[in-house]
Amino acid sequence: MKFLSKVAVPVAVILLSTSVLAQPTPEEQAERATELRQSIFKLLGSNFGPLRAMGRGDIPVNAELAEKAATRISQLSLMITDYFAYDTRAFDVETEALPVIWEETDAFAVKARNLTEAANDVLAAVASGDMDAIQDTAGSLGQNCGGCHDDFRVD
Amino acid sequence: MKFLSKVAVPVAVILLSTSVLAQPTPEEQAERATELRQSIFKLLGSNFGPLRAMGRGDIPVNAELAEKAATRISQLSLMITDYFAYDTRAFDVETEALPVIWEETDAFAVKARNLTEAANDVLAAVASGDMDAIQDTAGSLGQNCGGCHDDFRVD
Repeated sequence: MKFLSKVAVPVAVILLSTSVLAQPTPEEQAERATELRQSIFKLLGSNFGPLRAMGRGDIPVNAELAEKAATRISQLSLMITDYFAYDTRAFDVETEALPVIWEETDAFAVKARNLTEAANDVLAAVASGDMDAIQDTAGSLGQNCGGCHDDFRVD
Repeated sequence: MKFLSKVAVPVAVILLSTSVLAQPTPEEQAERATELRQSIFKLLGSNFGPLRAMGRGDIPVNAELAEKAATRISQLSLMITDYFAYDTRAFDVETEALPVIWEETDAFAVKARNLTEAANDVLAAVASGDMDAIQDTAGSLGQNCGGCHDDFRVD
């Protein structure tokens, strides 16, 4: 039943999100794709906040909060490449996403995977119960955000 | 290390999402909370689209796509109550969320849990390999969206 290729899935997801009857224009699809990928990053950011603060020692390490935030970052990070599959370079959308995302899709996918792994490192630290490890991995996670923003996002 | 209560976690998540140094005003927090919860529902909607279409028979049942969409709906549905913990009733935010959400928090939480369970039903159907069951559970999932919108969202 794999009549849709892996690449087609996210586009289908976006296309079908409004209605299967009213076919959106390519411009509408680009707007929608932009809005959806920005939703992922807003949610990522809101979960990154407490981990960064723990990593910096601005707030005490809280295993329960770290687990929740890292779980969500891990889950959301796995959505990134799908929601960027719709190439919006040709459209006049308000975006901080640099064109290089669609020129170097493999490098972009590696960055997304690094974020998943960094979030999973926090979860492993939580499972171990080692509060120092939670603080260290929470701090490292931020470097993954920044490392990707340097290359793929407008400053 | 549970110095933050379960209720406080989502508020902390939102508060810390911008900066721990620049304390946002309550108005800014309300704007941010609204934006974040709307992000969840945009992503939910984009994953609901293909399942609704499968349920209605508008597109062929695709187990891989159903699994991906249901996984994401399940994950996102678990974020709903946390991101609604910030009560924005007193603020002038652009929202379709009805005040009853913060008046009947238990009923709202039940609706969110129903959505999680409906998504998990799709995943169980995918695991069973029964294409008819995938179609049935995908169709039922939509009733959960609509059932909650009737009570808790502006028409």
